Amino acid sequence: MARWGGRARPAMQVPSPSVREAASMYGTAVAVFLVILVAALQGSAPAESPFPFHIPLDPEGTLELSWNISYAQETIYFQLLVRELKAGVLFGMSDRGELENADLVVLWTDRDGAYFGDAWSDQKGQVHLDSQQDYQLLRAQRTPEGLYLLFKRPFGTCDPNDYLIEDGTVHLVYGFLEEPLRSLESINTSGLHTGLQRVQLLKPSIPKPALPADTRTMEIRAPDVLIPGQQTTYWCYVTELPDGFPRHHIVMYEPIVTEGNEALVHHMEVFQCAAEFETIPHFSGPCDSKMKPQRLNFCRHVLAAWALGAKAFYYPEEAGLAFGGPGSSRFLRLEVHYHNPLVITGRRDSSGIRLYYTAALRRFDAGIMELGLAYTPVMAIPPQETAFVLTGYCTDKCTQLALPASGIHIFASQLHTHLTGRKVVTVLARDGRETEIVNRDNHYSPHFQEIRMLKKVVSVQPGDVLITSCTYNTEDRRLATVGGFGILEEMCVNYVHYYPQTQLELCKSAVDPGFLHKYFRLVNRFNSEEVCTCPQASVPEQFASVPWNSFNREVLKALYGFAPISMHCNRSSAVRFQGEWNRQPLPEIVSRLEEPTPHCPASQAQSPAGPTVLNISGGKG
Amino acid sequence: MARWGGRARPAMQVPSPSVREAASMYGTAVAVFLVILVAALQGSAPAESPFPFHIPLDPEGTLELSWNISYAQETIYFQLLVRELKAGVLFGMSDRGELENADLVVLWTDRDGAYFGDAWSDQKGQVHLDSQQDYQLLRAQRTPEGLYLLFKRPFGTCDPNDYLIEDGTVHLVYGFLEEPLRSLESINTSGLHTGLQRVQLLKPSIPKPALPADTRTMEIRAPDVLIPGQQTTYWCYVTELPDGFPRHHIVMYEPIVTEGNEALVHHMEVFQCAAEFETIPHFSGPCDSKMKPQRLNFCRHVLAAWALGAKAFYYPEEAGLAFGGPGSSRFLRLEVHYHNPLVITGRRDSSGIRLYYTAALRRFDAGIMELGLAYTPVMAIPPQETAFVLTGYCTDKCTQLALPASGIHIFASQLHTHLTGRKVVTVLARDGRETEIVNRDNHYSPHFQEIRMLKKVVSVQPGDVLITSCTYNTEDRRLATVGGFGILEEMCVNYVHYYPQTQLELCKSAVDPGFLHKYFRLVNRFNSEEVCTCPQASVPEQFASVPWNSFNREVLKALYGFAPISMHCNRSSAVRFQGEWNRQPLPEIVSRLEEPTPHCPASQAQSPAGPTVLNISGGKG
Repeated sequence: MARWGGRARPAMQVPSPSVREAASMYGTAVAVFLVILVAALQGSAPAESPFPFHIPLDPEGTLELSWNISYAQETIYFQLLVRELKAGVLFGMSDRGELENADLVVLWTDRDGAYFGDAWSDQKGQVHLDSQQDYQLLRAQRTPEGLYLLFKRPFGTCDPNDYLIEDGTVHLVYGFLEEPLRSLESINTSGLHTGLQRVQLLKPSIPKPALPADTRTMEIRAPDVLIPGQQTTYWCYVTELPDGFPRHHIVMYEPIVTEGNEALVHHMEVFQCAAEFETIPHFSGPCDSKMKPQRLNFCRHVLAAWALGAKAFYYPEEAGLAFGGPGSSRFLRLEVHYHNPLVITGRRDSSGIRLYYTAALRRFDAGIMELGLAYTPVMAIPPQETAFVLTGYCTDKCTQLALPASGIHIFASQLHTHLTGRKVVTVLARDGRETEIVNRDNHYSPHFQEIRMLKKVVSVQPGDVLITSCTYNTEDRRLATVGGFGILEEMCVNYVHYYPQTQLELCKSAVDPGFLHKYFRLVNRFNSEEVCTCPQASVPEQFASVPWNSFNREVLKALYGFAPISMHCNRSSAVRFQGEWNRQPLPEIVSRLEEPTPHCPASQAQSPAGPTVLNISGGKG
Repeated sequence: MARWGGRARPAMQVPSPSVREAASMYGTAVAVFLVILVAALQGSAPAESPFPFHIPLDPEGTLELSWNISYAQETIYFQLLVRELKAGVLFGMSDRGELENADLVVLWTDRDGAYFGDAWSDQKGQVHLDSQQDYQLLRAQRTPEGLYLLFKRPFGTCDPNDYLIEDGTVHLVYGFLEEPLRSLESINTSGLHTGLQRVQLLKPSIPKPALPADTRTMEIRAPDVLIPGQQTTYWCYVTELPDGFPRHHIVMYEPIVTEGNEALVHHMEVFQCAAEFETIPHFSGPCDSKMKPQRLNFCRHVLAAWALGAKAFYYPEEAGLAFGGPGSSRFLRLEVHYHNPLVITGRRDSSGIRLYYTAALRRFDAGIMELGLAYTPVMAIPPQETAFVLTGYCTDKCTQLALPASGIHIFASQLHTHLTGRKVVTVLARDGRETEIVNRDNHYSPHFQEIRMLKKVVSVQPGDVLITSCTYNTEDRRLATVGGFGILEEMCVNYVHYYPQTQLELCKSAVDPGFLHKYFRLVNRFNSEEVCTCPQASVPEQFASVPWNSFNREVLKALYGFAPISMHCNRSSAVRFQGEWNRQPLPEIVSRLEEPTPHCPASQAQSPAGPTVLNISGGKG
């Protein structure tokens, strides 16, 4: 656990009620730069970098964030590098990356000096100083590279204007102040140059498993791609394993990002193609190109996935992901998502993923299992909903049949929805009681789908139930959004990575179609026969004809919470395990896990009541 | 506003982390009684009694509570008289009078001394000292009458273990400690002699209107009743106004409780009989007696109502309640509810109500209007519900038609449900937005139905909507509870007292019966035709045959929140105003009032961290 900086206090912290008073106190100090030294920081610096995690915030690379996590203190230490400071910067977090209702730390200047304060923006983007200062400045240092700000913040602050830092995606926001201010309160974020960056802040602190002595590496990179001058590009590149490449275990992988392109390479995935095809044509080009060979659509088995801000992915010491050898395709597809909002042209890139693999196969093959909802239109979200929840089940009957007696161990998870997904969670239930969260993301974004190592391996026994719930926002839709493969349809999936591998590839559910049919008839009856939900119509057509009044919405919710389900308990995407899987009862859950309430740090009352005054440039006083 | 005792501190308050340490510090003090003086208390005592409100807590009269309210400080000052102190007492509040999950103040003794502390009981009745001490002892004084404890508490404390003191009913609880304790934590309330008393703690602070010079009084009392030796008796007594008694205005009334029977007389009401009957036979006896004349059932027009802990009821200066004169019955029925849990026998009582009336009629007649749900079985509560809400409407169409252009002014309210009612609230909405609470009781009890003067008169304009919602608990029912007159059926009514009187006596609603019929057919369809909801069956029979799974519950809720309503917009209980009142749309509410969140007093951090040590008897140390 990182303990540096633990109980440190900035030497010049001013608990003053009035910023102007404080400013005049220090306004006379003329110094080119002033370092607020933190004694503890210098005492016991850890061997490796104190900030293991890095991310560029803006596409120009003006702001760069590094951070470290103390789970013991429930605190994050941030280091923000501001390469070209004008009159100040804003940095913070918000629910989904908006600059309104954001939790902010602001470095700002007036004619007298510079200040650092915990602030927040209201729903109109107006910035206010926080009555409780939870971002605590530890050091401010000007270097040739730029200004370094070191500060810390507890995960939870108990301040209703503050963001609660949770597991999963965090939407970081930033903004630039161009001119000195009269006061902090004069800032409205709508008038600033701002942006957002998604990242998993609370990375798990998992000890790195030792790599086998014979570990070799293989780089899957699209060589010398000319990044297109457009905001979004998915680049597809096909490569192949050497002829006769035998079965190996992937034990780790890491990103290779071409230097200078750190802010452009958003995410990358390596897929294995279907073994059915003898060969797959080589290709290097945009995935939506008309030139793309059709067969690339059959390269969907994930071998590795990386997204911005992630570090290396390690398999548990006992397990590895098999690739190569008979029965598997030699062909791999690399997909690189370039995010180029400034429409930079002429930039070349050779980013990709470096696989670490061993011929000395580990004890267990790792596997990937799909949990959640089956891809069917019977599961639908009414339009204009702000938080509609759909739930998919992996029932006790399926796990009883398909899992080994000793159970399986889930060590990583990739959550997946299409465009309207806002939250995803998978919960484990045993004997009708929810016992554990497998993975939860309360700020899930379909634009940021990482494979995440779990903080704690979750063991699933035969007879356990896995419940995956997705929350959708369809405020911008005029018709119901049905389940399906299309980008405007929805999914609710958790790809869990586990070992030992089993034959169970897919454990998902959907409402019984007969009960949905009763629902359409009911809607028909309650709406004075105005609506024709013709029995010949398809399910999407029937959903499209529902008048979405409160009753039809509530009854659909009640139906999904009550009606029996069709289980998809499958060996592969089409082959079910033997048994009766239609009209299965919903798992009965008698005891739910409660959302954890953040416990308020005892040190809360000790935080300064006003902003910290600092002097980072020639004062005028 | 009462300001005495404002910033007072007990002289011996010990902010000690350890009770035992504190005990040993003071254990050597030997004093028969010790007074903790409060300087501020002696400075500026108000002219009238500092404790305008009184209530006996236990039927033996051992504990007597007096209190005063400072709305400016949002604090209640309590004076608890303990007539026969053994080893200690518990006093406090809980949601519905249970001794578990109660917010308690405890006076307890060990071998070294006596202590006063803020405590709470968990769901098993185990008592714990509160980490935040919000009951603050101001004085402890032994007198020949008993021990007086003076303490105060803010309405809200922001401590999750504390009760929030709100408008409406408060369930006070108490208990007696028979033996000295090793520690507070050794108390479990299940082993004690305990009880509950309901009271409206937050009485409104309304200036008393001046009474007319010619005010006369009339006492309606059942003379010399021998209180039956049983727990519950409703006593009925018929009396009459003098022959030719002309029209008067009642301007005030107050209880007359026979001395010594304060803990036995639970509530009293005076009703006027229906004018249709020339005469009503005289009677004095239990209301459920077979000897009771049938005609007494037609004496239901409330003239006055009082319940334990209430003081005098005043009409606003501009209005009075008409009685006497042509067109109204001369006959009155007094109903007294004796609550006799100790089954005391041989006690005689002549309690009743004293009416203050004037012949100089005031400008306005006061009226009573029924809001809420019509008495019909179409509104029903499924069994096993902990908090099922039914809502009745007084629509804009009805108020537009029936109220005068200048509107009406509601100054008092009596909430009414049968046995499963737990909360009642009436909200005023204008132009689709909720603007004001007319009356709310979050701890409503059907055993405690007072007419309550409102803290603030609520004006209702033509076109306004009045929404009355009742929350029911049917955990102990096996079948649905339908609306109706029977004691096992339910009601949801707010009798509002207002002026000027209008012809609108009843403004209530119920779901459209046609839509309920559709619901029964839907239930039939969704439950595999197992249930026969025969179309010939009555509504209660149909409700009795519904299998109460989650779907049928949720859909009933959705139906009540969506289906059109039948309006009862009536001149008298049977005569509707002219117009179409069937299949009316539900009022559309675009903006709801939020439940007020208690704002935490700034002084909170100053409260002592441990109990207060006091010495009220000869110490042993």
